Amino acid sequence: MEFVCSDRMMSLKPSTIREMLKYTSDPTVISLAGGNPSADLFPAKELEAVATEVLQNNAAVALQYGLTEGYPPLVKQIRERMKNKYGIDTPGDEILIVHGGQQVIDLVTKCLVNEGDTVISENPSFIGALNTFRSFKANIVGIPMDYEGMRIDMLEKALQTEKNVKLIYTIPTFQNPMGVTMSEERRKRLYELAVQYNVPIIEDSPYFELSYTGAPVITPMKAMDKTGHIIYAGSFSKVISPGIRIGYAIAPADLISKMTVAKQGVDVCTNQFMMVTIAKYLERYDLDEHIKACIDLYSKKLNFMLECIDKYFDKRVTHTTPGGGLFIWCDLPEGYSGTDLWRYALTKKVACVPGATFDVKSDPASRGFRLNFSLPSLQEIDDGCRILGECIKEFLK
Amino acid sequence: MEFVCSDRMMSLKPSTIREMLKYTSDPTVISLAGGNPSADLFPAKELEAVATEVLQNNAAVALQYGLTEGYPPLVKQIRERMKNKYGIDTPGDEILIVHGGQQVIDLVTKCLVNEGDTVISENPSFIGALNTFRSFKANIVGIPMDYEGMRIDMLEKALQTEKNVKLIYTIPTFQNPMGVTMSEERRKRLYELAVQYNVPIIEDSPYFELSYTGAPVITPMKAMDKTGHIIYAGSFSKVISPGIRIGYAIAPADLISKMTVAKQGVDVCTNQFMMVTIAKYLERYDLDEHIKACIDLYSKKLNFMLECIDKYFDKRVTHTTPGGGLFIWCDLPEGYSGTDLWRYALTKKVACVPGATFDVKSDPASRGFRLNFSLPSLQEIDDGCRILGECIKEFLK
Repeated sequence: MEFVCSDRMMSLKPSTIREMLKYTSDPTVISLAGGNPSADLFPAKELEAVATEVLQNNAAVALQYGLTEGYPPLVKQIRERMKNKYGIDTPGDEILIVHGGQQVIDLVTKCLVNEGDTVISENPSFIGALNTFRSFKANIVGIPMDYEGMRIDMLEKALQTEKNVKLIYTIPTFQNPMGVTMSEERRKRLYELAVQYNVPIIEDSPYFELSYTGAPVITPMKAMDKTGHIIYAGSFSKVISPGIRIGYAIAPADLISKMTVAKQGVDVCTNQFMMVTIAKYLERYDLDEHIKACIDLYSKKLNFMLECIDKYFDKRVTHTTPGGGLFIWCDLPEGYSGTDLWRYALTKKVACVPGATFDVKSDPASRGFRLNFSLPSLQEIDDGCRILGECIKEFLK
Repeated sequence: MEFVCSDRMMSLKPSTIREMLKYTSDPTVISLAGGNPSADLFPAKELEAVATEVLQNNAAVALQYGLTEGYPPLVKQIRERMKNKYGIDTPGDEILIVHGGQQVIDLVTKCLVNEGDTVISENPSFIGALNTFRSFKANIVGIPMDYEGMRIDMLEKALQTEKNVKLIYTIPTFQNPMGVTMSEERRKRLYELAVQYNVPIIEDSPYFELSYTGAPVITPMKAMDKTGHIIYAGSFSKVISPGIRIGYAIAPADLISKMTVAKQGVDVCTNQFMMVTIAKYLERYDLDEHIKACIDLYSKKLNFMLECIDKYFDKRVTHTTPGGGLFIWCDLPEGYSGTDLWRYALTKKVACVPGATFDVKSDPASRGFRLNFSLPSLQEIDDGCRILGECIKEFLK
């Protein structure tokens, strides 16, 4: 039979990045395109130890259905870590464990956004979130980014003029795709505006602990939330492993309880075996020590990629200088398209991600492109940037 | 802040069963309410062996992001098993691995059903599916069940009169909650009607291999599908473990590709560690041998519960005699409510599930109640049925 798609799926495109990943499985292509953590950092031995222990001593719990809210000892671990390290206090039922940070975005949108409602997002932004908003037929309004994060002046204008604004979506720290961090002043103003206009914020924060400057970790905005306007999307994907698919929402209890009901209809509960195993991992090992090892490797890779960009790229190409995370964003000079560069670079066996991919309106004129430094080796970073630099040179001739 | 719920969440109630499970965590309550497999059957040792092997030899793959479509070796295992055992041929990209069978229902509904469209379901039916349909604001039309399955004559009438019918939902084998199996004749007619009216069927089939009569396993309807009208929802929850959250869809490739895009916006990809581990489990061990052990235990429990019902329940209570699965359905005589019995039995420390829970319109007058025999011990089955029998006796006085 021929299937007739629902309206909501009409506006949804395959994630260019994930589609590209399929094509760039060609091992001769140097990929600076992914958003994957380095496999060198996966705590495989530690997970083996705790998974073994769980299956030997606690299989009746670990292999059974779990509570939709999440495995209580893991909820407790998250509660204590977020409180003790970052001052985020969740005394009641303010945590829901989900299959990765993406599911927080999906469930929040499901619970709060009707078809046609407006979602305000940084532009460019994480394509996974944009696709979620599209799948609920939201009207996505993009607020331009500069190198200090979301343009809060333009956010205020949007809040004044747009109708039925139901969510503001931000990645304030080491943003995907730009790698920039919202300034303290803008964070405060963003929160004030959310309260003033009574619009909740999704603070998507998968990278914030991956801070490479030696400066103290930037506390999540959620810590300043006295009114319940901030919904925090947390994830272990970038600091433990994405293959385990464990993320969590922190939000006021009445929203969490609605998200829990929504999750029952989506996938019943999060992988119980994984929740029990990760709870044991957090109990047994020092996650902060592990994060130090991540920082150690990634800061080397970031600095090396910045050097390579400096060495190989035409000086008219501007770029961000991230304090952490996984990505650097580059802009070609006016009049040049990141999509054209991307397409050309692929023929030279280097993959990046064109800026249009992250654009709220998929604007093909976007001059930007995103580079990832966490997955490629130093050699691949060097080769990749050199070849990209050559492509840019031919481009700007 | 006070969150204003989206319209779609307004019609959604917490799963009574999952809510009840929270309350019946009271260890003095005998629960015949759950739908959980017996923890005695979890292949913990085998999973420990393969999880260890995976983390030692394949962690770089197992702990990384995976393809949204699923881990290819697991897709291959499923493809070969479904073809060789049940004649379901999927030569191309007709399989998508998901976080449990529930997610098949969610993604299919997301891809095919607009707000206000009609979904036809057996009535009573699986509450998880009904809640998914509700979360997309579908108009759910219930087709009454009898002890041979969905009343196909009434389905035909519904297909003639209802507008915008986008899906027919069925659990043809050992149905939840009734435990009945659709007759061969009705299956054929159901498929013919789906083709005639060009409406796809979701065949939800988590239990079909748990067949206790010694008769050959009833082949899934999907095996008769020559036109692509049947979307098969498969699951390892009842034959390996629900805690691993691994299910799969089998459907025409163009629908699978849409579901894949939808899944990217929901949770990116299925737990890769779990997919790699289960692929290794299926390669290393004989799932059919394991299923035999499940059948061995569950058939004993089913027969014992049937004996207990016979011994303790008033003869005016009718019940199904399932050939497999996890549930027996009972009906009180006309004029008595399963909900009232359920509430009363809870005060006597026995939990069942009232029929209204599974009713498309949550009809509180439903005379039915569902009993689970997979999770309780033989002693609990005896005690539970005895106490329920006493409650019924007082009720029918």
